[in-house]
Amino acid sequence: MSMWIERYKTEINELFTAENVLRNQLEVEKVLAEANAECGFIPKEAGKEIAEKSTMEFVKLERVREIEKEIHHEPMNIVMGIAEQCPNHGGYVHYGVTSNDIMDTMWGLIIKEATSIILKEGKKLQKTLIDFIDKNKEVTIIGRTHGQHAIPTTLGFKFANFLAELDLAIINLENAPTGYGKISGAVGNYASFGTMEVEKLVLEKLGLQKPMITTQVIPRIMHATFMFALAGISSVIERLAKEIRHLQRTEIGELQEPFKPSQVGSSTMPQKKNPHKTERICGLARVVRANVQASLETIPLEHERDISNSSLERIIIPESFILTHYILKQTITIVKDLGVNKEKIKENLYLTEGRQCAERVMLALTEKVGRQKGHEILKSLASKKDFEQAILNHEEVGRIFTREELEELLDPLTYIGLAKEKTEEVVEKIRKKI
Amino acid sequence: MSMWIERYKTEINELFTAENVLRNQLEVEKVLAEANAECGFIPKEAGKEIAEKSTMEFVKLERVREIEKEIHHEPMNIVMGIAEQCPNHGGYVHYGVTSNDIMDTMWGLIIKEATSIILKEGKKLQKTLIDFIDKNKEVTIIGRTHGQHAIPTTLGFKFANFLAELDLAIINLENAPTGYGKISGAVGNYASFGTMEVEKLVLEKLGLQKPMITTQVIPRIMHATFMFALAGISSVIERLAKEIRHLQRTEIGELQEPFKPSQVGSSTMPQKKNPHKTERICGLARVVRANVQASLETIPLEHERDISNSSLERIIIPESFILTHYILKQTITIVKDLGVNKEKIKENLYLTEGRQCAERVMLALTEKVGRQKGHEILKSLASKKDFEQAILNHEEVGRIFTREELEELLDPLTYIGLAKEKTEEVVEKIRKKI
Amino acid sequence: MSMWIERYKTEINELFTAENVLRNQLEVEKVLAEANAECGFIPKEAGKEIAEKSTMEFVKLERVREIEKEIHHEPMNIVMGIAEQCPNHGGYVHYGVTSNDIMDTMWGLIIKEATSIILKEGKKLQKTLIDFIDKNKEVTIIGRTHGQHAIPTTLGFKFANFLAELDLAIINLENAPTGYGKISGAVGNYASFGTMEVEKLVLEKLGLQKPMITTQVIPRIMHATFMFALAGISSVIERLAKEIRHLQRTEIGELQEPFKPSQVGSSTMPQKKNPHKTERICGLARVVRANVQASLETIPLEHERDISNSSLERIIIPESFILTHYILKQTITIVKDLGVNKEKIKENLYLTEGRQCAERVMLALTEKVGRQKGHEILKSLASKKDFEQAILNHEEVGRIFTREELEELLDPLTYIGLAKEKTEEVVEKIRKKI
Amino acid sequence: MSMWIERYKTEINELFTAENVLRNQLEVEKVLAEANAECGFIPKEAGKEIAEKSTMEFVKLERVREIEKEIHHEPMNIVMGIAEQCPNHGGYVHYGVTSNDIMDTMWGLIIKEATSIILKEGKKLQKTLIDFIDKNKEVTIIGRTHGQHAIPTTLGFKFANFLAELDLAIINLENAPTGYGKISGAVGNYASFGTMEVEKLVLEKLGLQKPMITTQVIPRIMHATFMFALAGISSVIERLAKEIRHLQRTEIGELQEPFKPSQVGSSTMPQKKNPHKTERICGLARVVRANVQASLETIPLEHERDISNSSLERIIIPESFILTHYILKQTITIVKDLGVNKEKIKENLYLTEGRQCAERVMLALTEKVGRQKGHEILKSLASKKDFEQAILNHEEVGRIFTREELEELLDPLTYIGLAKEKTEEVVEKIRKKI
Repeated sequence: MSMWIERYKTEINELFTAENVLRNQLEVEKVLAEANAECGFIPKEAGKEIAEKSTMEFVKLERVREIEKEIHHEPMNIVMGIAEQCPNHGGYVHYGVTSNDIMDTMWGLIIKEATSIILKEGKKLQKTLIDFIDKNKEVTIIGRTHGQHAIPTTLGFKFANFLAELDLAIINLENAPTGYGKISGAVGNYASFGTMEVEKLVLEKLGLQKPMITTQVIPRIMHATFMFALAGISSVIERLAKEIRHLQRTEIGELQEPFKPSQVGSSTMPQKKNPHKTERICGLARVVRANVQASLETIPLEHERDISNSSLERIIIPESFILTHYILKQTITIVKDLGVNKEKIKENLYLTEGRQCAERVMLALTEKVGRQKGHEILKSLASKKDFEQAILNHEEVGRIFTREELEELLDPLTYIGLAKEKTEEVVEKIRKKI
Repeated sequence: MSMWIERYKTEINELFTAENVLRNQLEVEKVLAEANAECGFIPKEAGKEIAEKSTMEFVKLERVREIEKEIHHEPMNIVMGIAEQCPNHGGYVHYGVTSNDIMDTMWGLIIKEATSIILKEGKKLQKTLIDFIDKNKEVTIIGRTHGQHAIPTTLGFKFANFLAELDLAIINLENAPTGYGKISGAVGNYASFGTMEVEKLVLEKLGLQKPMITTQVIPRIMHATFMFALAGISSVIERLAKEIRHLQRTEIGELQEPFKPSQVGSSTMPQKKNPHKTERICGLARVVRANVQASLETIPLEHERDISNSSLERIIIPESFILTHYILKQTITIVKDLGVNKEKIKENLYLTEGRQCAERVMLALTEKVGRQKGHEILKSLASKKDFEQAILNHEEVGRIFTREELEELLDPLTYIGLAKEKTEEVVEKIRKKI
Repeated sequence: MSMWIERYKTEINELFTAENVLRNQLEVEKVLAEANAECGFIPKEAGKEIAEKSTMEFVKLERVREIEKEIHHEPMNIVMGIAEQCPNHGGYVHYGVTSNDIMDTMWGLIIKEATSIILKEGKKLQKTLIDFIDKNKEVTIIGRTHGQHAIPTTLGFKFANFLAELDLAIINLENAPTGYGKISGAVGNYASFGTMEVEKLVLEKLGLQKPMITTQVIPRIMHATFMFALAGISSVIERLAKEIRHLQRTEIGELQEPFKPSQVGSSTMPQKKNPHKTERICGLARVVRANVQASLETIPLEHERDISNSSLERIIIPESFILTHYILKQTITIVKDLGVNKEKIKENLYLTEGRQCAERVMLALTEKVGRQKGHEILKSLASKKDFEQAILNHEEVGRIFTREELEELLDPLTYIGLAKEKTEEVVEKIRKKI
Repeated sequence: MSMWIERYKTEINELFTAENVLRNQLEVEKVLAEANAECGFIPKEAGKEIAEKSTMEFVKLERVREIEKEIHHEPMNIVMGIAEQCPNHGGYVHYGVTSNDIMDTMWGLIIKEATSIILKEGKKLQKTLIDFIDKNKEVTIIGRTHGQHAIPTTLGFKFANFLAELDLAIINLENAPTGYGKISGAVGNYASFGTMEVEKLVLEKLGLQKPMITTQVIPRIMHATFMFALAGISSVIERLAKEIRHLQRTEIGELQEPFKPSQVGSSTMPQKKNPHKTERICGLARVVRANVQASLETIPLEHERDISNSSLERIIIPESFILTHYILKQTITIVKDLGVNKEKIKENLYLTEGRQCAERVMLALTEKVGRQKGHEILKSLASKKDFEQAILNHEEVGRIFTREELEELLDPLTYIGLAKEKTEEVVEKIRKKI
């Protein structure tokens, strides 16, 4: 709302400007007039005149705003704005419909387009992730659970997980009911027309779908569903953003968010290169998440409708689409030029000097001493200074392996399981979809 | 958590007891042992012994609790609990897996069953709604928007809207990824096995699905998705509950939540019959909604996992399933015996003395004076004492209709549009699905 | 973010424009330079030059935006924007501070002013409520619990409750820690200055308070606290808005949201006068509530700070202030011209024909038959057609009262308890505070 | 709700058991009877008998549950449960009050006690933090912003920040309106008594406060306020928990959550010592946060009350108190035995080889080259391999310092500003309060 928010606007914002809202409202009134004429509700010439005048060339934003100040009603201001441009048949504008037929259908057009932009950008991010994976699938890196070194994996495998999670989040948006309109009248029962034909024609012309049934409004469970899907996408990307932030920590240094030479990290600490872009993503994701609450609260409208949905939707729907789009676009930029410090990755991989392969030794011990006992022995040896030597010195398990065999077991480069195969598999599956 | 919550427990709670959690953990360890034996990771007899002992007959809840107090780890306590029952092959229990292979797979089993219970109950509520619709499809009732009388509709049509919205909410749960398990090890790359075969066998035996890829954990976007779907169901039902509450208002009196003769409405106001069941539903829906936030916040786990998800999921997953189930069951009871006061409905239908059909008159005027002008005239006449007479007296439109024609237009019983046809259509579609 | 949100902007929005943000950032740099000079960290003339140039006359918005595009850093762009205006001492701009010293202190200035506007508007609404109460304290109205007629009360008493609740909500904002700044450096320990003197001077000059201690940032529990307070104010007003909406229902008709003659209620139903303003308030309150989540999530920043707070605060802080202000202003307008239909209020008061006084009869029976038995008898009689006659006919209690005595008991006008006294008391208390 | 939640129960749970709820309800009925007798509303002997019998010795939990099954009403079941124990004056039980007078007053008693437990535990945690600070105030540690090394600070200073933030969160709870009751009848206007005297007496006897005015219920803004305060406490502690988790990362290793020798970190990775307790705190804090939403949604009850608050409060109020208490207790245990690895802290402190003191060099350069230019030069030198040498070699600034002077500037141990002084100051302030 403030100028500050301007920062996070992407081109998707164009969909939500007053101009574009008016454009879409006019488009709905236009095809309504055509449909009304086709169905014989209004004279052919009326349909023609209204359709011709229902454009922004004739109906100006300033004018409809003026009218709204007088009558306090949207879209009645548009109705009057069109009517005054139609000297002969203005009286037939808006025939048979209730305001919300125009409003929900207009929203349907905008939401459909916004969803399609998000889905396209989502696929673009998936492609970018695949490019990154392709370049980094051979990079062995330490896996971390609870912030602690676990067992080795690959950088490609790590990102294949983000790729697949993003896919689950995108599927939610694909499944969400978007692109619906309605021309079913004041309480949804087509009383003014006595036929569903006008609705059928209008929605066909606009490329929108028809809900199974409506009250005065399209059921808000639909809106909550796509609002949630946007929050899912943002939250999944937040996981990726956190990964980058943490792997960029001074002590870790494995990844590096792109940082231009002219860029300033800190105004007082010249040495700083902060991952501020990924931090920003984490912050914005919270807003998209919180909007789900407001959207869920809106489902239980009263009777055939109350209008408490309208004001908040004008805020949260654009906000969630814009921020999700911003997050997607930023992430593409980040992943594209993400710095990979292979030396640091290698250094960290060996940091725990064999302990990162303790599982492998334990499994090799199972047959001899049992899994549980193997676990106990290795747990106690893991705190010794030299893990390898400690194993070899141990009275019970020391003689099970030669030093050579043990060193092979403790080599992290050979203990990455099916990381590469699985990564390939995931990349192939996603590549086919996008 | 307190004894008070006991009130809202349904039989679905059985899925979330310590006993059932243990039962399912044992089941996973059992089929894991079988799969390990089939794949040659452990001796056949080990597989047999472990599978035999991995039941609650041998591994007691008290015992695993004792062990947990010592080692502070779940499910390592179960591993030790089984192992101590296997004199010969205890060392092979839990071979090759990480704790969370057991935990997430156990959750998968429970969530799958819980989802199926909710879906069944959802369909049962849909049937109950259809029964109600069948009985009330001929009842003409005033439609209300903004709490104000709008135009007439039918009681059946009203409930057909709830029926269809519930369907959208149920579809969200059907689409949600539930019933997944994983046996992919400490960071998801199958390092301990070097094969995906064990996972394949385990999940087949358990009837679970396999995620495309995992870290140590199944991606939490899956959990947020079903948690949202539960909130959607609860919120859609809240709309129904609010409808009943408002139509039961003293001044309205059209519907009446079931109220037993022995029941007390108020301890101090003997006359009271309060819709406390539907009010309770509205309250509980808020809890299910709020849990979505906690679930969304959990998506961005760190690296190959952090365990911040575990504690909160033990609280919010049972809570959302139990409360949604309670809400569904209560609503079935309510709709089954919902009182319909046809006299009051009729009285209210005629309350505004023709104004509820002003739209119809306006449309009839369109050809003569234009829609917009008709609107203005009728708006001003609507505030006169006798609406019908005021129309007839009006200099411009008074002569357009005879009194008879006007009275026909103002008859609410004949201005319900396609309410009945649409209701039939919706009922047919849903009937086919359930 | 979209043009649509423009609708809800009030003058408080001026605080959050890019211009005003820059103005306040410059103000902080200005007094910093003065303080630095006073403490001897920079030459006196440097302090003078910088202070003189740190205004919007010299440092233009377009210019700092240009610089930001290059260096991707705020407020380093402002630092450079000032420096280039200071031919002699530009090198001393921003001496000793970290960016966030400027940012958080600037926020402190804006939040302080925004809070003061909200508090002023809150008191104005309280005054408006008192005026309404003064006019309506004698109006006896039916009290409603569970949407059902309970016992009588007064319209003044109803609004005295809103008045007092609003007071509780306002106290939360008064208690919230707003108006804080910090000049404590990169990690909060004053390393660059080695003294707290600069901070002391800067905050004194700006009229801001000093937190007990900070990291690089002021603790975000402070922000969550005022964000919650705003949500509390909005939610309390939502209760008032719902009251008006429900009392305006067609069947109830006791209150009427102001509605201009030129205003249109519905584009298709000429008779409609919808309470759309109060509905809008209910919608917007959801957004303010949801923002609390995002704010709470921001408390656990990492180490001496991560910057995930920054982006979301630029969105949610202005949003919550603006919407709360809008809600307050709208409510003042509404309450000022709120229609009170005394006839309808009276009609509804008598609607249940004595049952609204059943409690009073029960209490009168206590001595004779016991409270519990009295309750049971009256409960069963309440469903008879003629409540009064049914009591008189009852074999056990019929002879306890004469008809005259009973009619006195059943007169709602005399059963309003201390409604008037309590109302006076509340009004007096609040009047003293505002 | 499930057995699993049992894990997080503390002794505070005792307050929320069915037994304790009944005990408190009986207590309210008891003092009500006494007050009614004192005011002359019921006979002295009635007051005596009822007061004597209103204890759990006479009124059994099983019995009131039985009655509730019949009449579907709480606390009417308690009223009947007491009455049947009073052979002479049972008819005077519950005289003059509405159910919610008992319920809200009972809640008041429980919430008051629960709040006091939380506040006590909060102070205990503050003491524990002070002990930790006392032991670690001399430990110089690297400060981190954006996950990147910033400038040095002390471990004591770090924790002084947590100490002060916790204080802000605790103040919110102290400020929150808890410990209120009401005996103001069905709509809050004392109609049944015609006096506020009974309320005054009851609340005095119970040690509760009186709201300025009520409807049938105490305003729910009060409840939202303490629910938020609990979320604030949990979220502030989450920041501390995250600090520990991150400083325990394998690469960092500065802090170590207590880990018993018998404890198991991972079932498959013997080397693991995971910070699972602090991770659990982070998870549970989300639940407490989300409950704020449900609580805020409950503020706008309808008219003189609807009962949608009741069911959800039975869930979320105990939940938030119990989880906050659990979090506080766990944190005390953790901080008490928190491992501090001074060697690792020192190693990390020097990790960036002088760059952590770049700010100090920049400030020293200000006079000679200007702050801004100094920043630019040092930023470019920071990426050189040997930062110190690079500075000395630089043509413009190389001659400003001798190597000795520069080494002094680059010594992190002497660049901690007022960390120690500020820490002392904070500890002193808090020590005085607790």
